[in-house]
Amino acid sequence: MAQRLEGKQVAEAITQRVREKSEALRKRGVVPTLAIVRAGENPSDLSYERGAMKRAEKAGIEVKRFLFEETVSQETLLAEIDKINRDDGIHGALIFRPLPQQIDDGAVRAALLPRKDVDGITEGSLAGIFTGSGNGFAPCTARACMEILDHYKIQLRGKRVAVLGRSLVIGKPVSMMALAKNATVTICHSRTGDEAMRNICRESDILIAAAGQAGMVDEGYVREGQVILDVGINVDEEGRLCGDVDFERAGAAGYITPVPGGIGAVTTAVLMQQTAEAAEMARTAKAAAGLVE
Amino acid sequence: MAQRLEGKQVAEAITQRVREKSEALRKRGVVPTLAIVRAGENPSDLSYERGAMKRAEKAGIEVKRFLFEETVSQETLLAEIDKINRDDGIHGALIFRPLPQQIDDGAVRAALLPRKDVDGITEGSLAGIFTGSGNGFAPCTARACMEILDHYKIQLRGKRVAVLGRSLVIGKPVSMMALAKNATVTICHSRTGDEAMRNICRESDILIAAAGQAGMVDEGYVREGQVILDVGINVDEEGRLCGDVDFERAGAAGYITPVPGGIGAVTTAVLMQQTAEAAEMARTAKAAAGLVE
Repeated sequence: MAQRLEGKQVAEAITQRVREKSEALRKRGVVPTLAIVRAGENPSDLSYERGAMKRAEKAGIEVKRFLFEETVSQETLLAEIDKINRDDGIHGALIFRPLPQQIDDGAVRAALLPRKDVDGITEGSLAGIFTGSGNGFAPCTARACMEILDHYKIQLRGKRVAVLGRSLVIGKPVSMMALAKNATVTICHSRTGDEAMRNICRESDILIAAAGQAGMVDEGYVREGQVILDVGINVDEEGRLCGDVDFERAGAAGYITPVPGGIGAVTTAVLMQQTAEAAEMARTAKAAAGLVE
Repeated sequence: MAQRLEGKQVAEAITQRVREKSEALRKRGVVPTLAIVRAGENPSDLSYERGAMKRAEKAGIEVKRFLFEETVSQETLLAEIDKINRDDGIHGALIFRPLPQQIDDGAVRAALLPRKDVDGITEGSLAGIFTGSGNGFAPCTARACMEILDHYKIQLRGKRVAVLGRSLVIGKPVSMMALAKNATVTICHSRTGDEAMRNICRESDILIAAAGQAGMVDEGYVREGQVILDVGINVDEEGRLCGDVDFERAGAAGYITPVPGGIGAVTTAVLMQQTAEAAEMARTAKAAAGLVE
């Protein structure tokens, strides 16, 4: 049976590092602060928000919530983002999406400053990941994958990585991040075809499953010793949370991140990490401009 | 022996389409115009420029050249780009790079408006390719690959594509463009390792070689019927222009673009195509703003 790559320890290690960074910042008068923008009361948003609030407390990050009715106008939402952009006391923003129907998602994403985009949703952040310029931030789930590999000392250099899925939230950015670490990356998707996909996955050293299909990764996708990161968050026939990987049938693999308790457990820690980094960069920029010591 | 996928016919077909578009624009009072910005007299820049001028004439595109000494200051260059940005009579700009040492390449790229970036060098254009937003333009060589496949009716959907090289000029953008056409893409590079690279290339239906290593693609990389796009422009031991593919040894492949006469022959046609598209978009934007009919 494959070993579980637990997310909890990774999240705790990150949180500890963020806490130290937050304390250092607070000593210099900076309280690293995250804005959470939510319209409506989607249960999965509420659940993520609760997790984020708890994680923020542990990490020494302040949270300011900006809550709106589901019927909020685009004008109101854009005005709030503009205020967040201008507010020196806010270093990063998480905007829950999908937004209500009446809101233009592209306009909202374009409105947020990349340097406050700690959830990696702006074109600026995505360009930074694509070009390696270091501008903006990665989508938290993509960086969570990198953090898990890093924590468990799994090298990417020269390794074959198969990524299932090509979304902007995970598939494409995680591919570019693995490439930047010198992995050889293959991006598979719905048009790849079942047989080709199985072959590619079996040939890979590391498989990142982000297809959003409950239990699709079975014995046909894996080989001995392989590392599998399961990014899927699905609900199975019995109403239970499950990933893209059938943990039992994919048991030949060496290591698998469980769902729940794997990647998902690390994302809020990454959100705090990126908020602290944004606060640090804002302070460095101010210092460079001679505004603080 | 593999068949040659000639670039010339592709370039001519594109040029013909651009010419029609240019004529239609001219009838409406718009002269599609490309700015060429060059500092110094690098022989390869001069050679590309001559080709571009000829292609522009055939395509009905006007060219305005902005030529500087190699010692030009960053201030002067940025001021010129600012003028190009503001000039409604210029629709696209080609800036020869690498720029002289005293110039900050990133600052120059950031200065150009993505909607005039017909050579695909800005973060905005690259973000557009990564996210599929349609903003900006592709690097001409990457789009030339797509145009050649399209011209010869080589489908990408569901095909395995191996890309050798991960630069921002060709490897990364062409990977994203092939992915957008539903190919399954593997990006290989210097850290992939020789054996893995050969296996990946042999498994691919389409191989895009952009490693910049004279004749590296030999019989070990190819299989029967494969399509190979050779993007390499190298000089061999005898001082002759050659690609990344050893045409004779890779002869088992079905189709190979020759060097010279393949991809390179198509890039200036793509440059004109993107200039005409930029002119068309500028006109559409003006019409939407009620400034023209």
